[in-house]
Amino acid sequence: MAQEFEPVGSTPFPAATAADVLFQLRCQAPLTHIITNHVVTNFTANLLLAIGATPAMLSDPQESSEFQSLAKALSINVGTLSQSQAVAIRAAVDAALEAGNPWVLDPVAVGPLSLRTRLCEALIQQAPSAIRGNASEIMTLAGFESVGRGPESVALSDDAVEAARSLAQQTDAIVAVTGARDYITDGEQVLRVEGGSALLTRITGAGCALSSLVAACLGTGRAPLEAAASACAFMAAASEIAEERSQGPGSLSVALLDSLYDLNLHDLERLES
Amino acid sequence: MAQEFEPVGSTPFPAATAADVLFQLRCQAPLTHIITNHVVTNFTANLLLAIGATPAMLSDPQESSEFQSLAKALSINVGTLSQSQAVAIRAAVDAALEAGNPWVLDPVAVGPLSLRTRLCEALIQQAPSAIRGNASEIMTLAGFESVGRGPESVALSDDAVEAARSLAQQTDAIVAVTGARDYITDGEQVLRVEGGSALLTRITGAGCALSSLVAACLGTGRAPLEAAASACAFMAAASEIAEERSQGPGSLSVALLDSLYDLNLHDLERLES
Amino acid sequence: MAQEFEPVGSTPFPAATAADVLFQLRCQAPLTHIITNHVVTNFTANLLLAIGATPAMLSDPQESSEFQSLAKALSINVGTLSQSQAVAIRAAVDAALEAGNPWVLDPVAVGPLSLRTRLCEALIQQAPSAIRGNASEIMTLAGFESVGRGPESVALSDDAVEAARSLAQQTDAIVAVTGARDYITDGEQVLRVEGGSALLTRITGAGCALSSLVAACLGTGRAPLEAAASACAFMAAASEIAEERSQGPGSLSVALLDSLYDLNLHDLERLES
Repeated sequence: MAQEFEPVGSTPFPAATAADVLFQLRCQAPLTHIITNHVVTNFTANLLLAIGATPAMLSDPQESSEFQSLAKALSINVGTLSQSQAVAIRAAVDAALEAGNPWVLDPVAVGPLSLRTRLCEALIQQAPSAIRGNASEIMTLAGFESVGRGPESVALSDDAVEAARSLAQQTDAIVAVTGARDYITDGEQVLRVEGGSALLTRITGAGCALSSLVAACLGTGRAPLEAAASACAFMAAASEIAEERSQGPGSLSVALLDSLYDLNLHDLERLES
Repeated sequence: MAQEFEPVGSTPFPAATAADVLFQLRCQAPLTHIITNHVVTNFTANLLLAIGATPAMLSDPQESSEFQSLAKALSINVGTLSQSQAVAIRAAVDAALEAGNPWVLDPVAVGPLSLRTRLCEALIQQAPSAIRGNASEIMTLAGFESVGRGPESVALSDDAVEAARSLAQQTDAIVAVTGARDYITDGEQVLRVEGGSALLTRITGAGCALSSLVAACLGTGRAPLEAAASACAFMAAASEIAEERSQGPGSLSVALLDSLYDLNLHDLERLES
Repeated sequence: MAQEFEPVGSTPFPAATAADVLFQLRCQAPLTHIITNHVVTNFTANLLLAIGATPAMLSDPQESSEFQSLAKALSINVGTLSQSQAVAIRAAVDAALEAGNPWVLDPVAVGPLSLRTRLCEALIQQAPSAIRGNASEIMTLAGFESVGRGPESVALSDDAVEAARSLAQQTDAIVAVTGARDYITDGEQVLRVEGGSALLTRITGAGCALSSLVAACLGTGRAPLEAAASACAFMAAASEIAEERSQGPGSLSVALLDSLYDLNLHDLERLES
């Protein structure tokens, strides 16, 4: 559902492009290697399987490195980072770069916590293809002032568009700042995805799973800006449909997987109307 | 649904008080730091989000310590304890005490397993605000004879009221022994919560998530006895409603999250009738 | 739903035998110790609870060893193997053998990844009672040529019957190769289970949970070949019913747990018709 507000300089992302990326995603079912927090592993894997990607998760640093020769993309999330997971992350990122695979960073709660903050600051020097976060996380990584309390962002995505653009310019990554509206930028162009269920904030891991979905879309070989925006559109469209079919956050999670499985151009076009 | 049996000396917990704590919980959405077993992380986070609290989970000891300056409460569960998690637990508990935050212990399967038993025995000396367990766990921790086989309690909560009272007196913690009936005591007064779905025993993590819900309620600043009893009442009322809407344990889990999201005074009053 | 194709030398597994094992499983609720990958812990525990077994998961090597004196069976899955988990797995397997408990190996993605491949090659020398995998995994372990890409098998179970028989002869284990059709063999006799929902491939952990269900069935003390085939029949029958009640992979997971909870002889007989 489009809203009145239109941030200066952002462009609505066309449903037809998202539908095209969706078709590619389902044809290729790209094998996507995911190192994420232990809260959302199951939901993330199920979300990627539902839409048609092929998720895989590993723990060991050497196996994480080896697996990049099989995988098409890598997704990194630092939500429950440990010293040993940091070793696996670094090995996987190095291997992804060597294999020429795109990789995505989700800098959960970066800022107030030291281990992940140091790691994220190092990782953005490692040529991520995309970075997806909430407003606080993107503002923190970009060096803007922000107010975070763990994974819960109190800033609005609308307020973080400039930070996202700046971070994209600093890192050469696509930056997606998501929230009530999603903005996806390469540092110049800013795409906008509106809609989506507000009830997503009452289930854990929607943002984390979205980051892995960005990685899967990048794994198709599609242009990164369109790939990342498509992932945002998939989640927005599917969650709107899911909310209509649900009675609360429990049934929303279930219906989200069902609606991602069925997602089509018609559903994506609803976001534009 | 109240039953005929009334253990000597226990008092039914009033729905109106639970509803008042529920209101506070939703207004404050207390940031609750949870270190729990890897089986129940997702369900626990979703359960707290559904009712209106703000869960956060971390793994690194230093981050676990740092996070207590942001959090309002801490929940510890030893269900899949490892040596490295024990380090994080100790760091988090120390930081919670320093920050003046309440913390809750869930001593899963204490007794037959050595690492967790040593840790739990040490932790109850660390001024927990509340301890929640099944009958076997509470009897074991209190030094009473019990029969446990892992996380499955074969004793009844009715048989563990004296052990709970004794453990509360030994530790100055609120002790909640939960089962078909829940008893919550400060060592003197014993509150009782009846009702709840028996089908909860066929989903993993209901008890574990309840412990984290106790922590969230303590995070509101409410008096610990009422906060802990309220968490038990929320789970009992929501699970009764969920059972009516479900066809088995799979749909019960889903409906439980939905009914916690919607939970109100009317639902809580059903437990009294 | 039986299909035209009938591999030479395989015998349909009778529903009546599966129903008998189901009855034993529910009477005994065998305590089943599960060390599995961190993606599927919750789903696996819920699946075993739904049908009537008693799952338990631990992390610490010493506790994993201690627990075998309480448990009736052990299930090992290497899907997110780490060095520290390998230590716990070895301790648990040693303890299971000492206690005389059956144990099951799920060799997820064996072949292209070094840590798990070395461990699995060592573990099949440790007298597993059963091995369950997809076609690629069983062909790899048996020393046959195969094509794997991580956990996703591209070979058909129909093509892996000879590999399964060979692996059973090499290891003295029951080998179950599962897919569109499941084959379960002791190296001589080959039982066949047909049916099941193809949509299971769109949720994570169905195969992993099936391996733990095999362990639970072995924990009843029933003859291993029948126990393993029964677990396959339970999953096939329950998933067919679940598919009829679902709108996609999200609701399939939920309905699968519900239908396992209710599963009966009548449901199992549908697989034969």
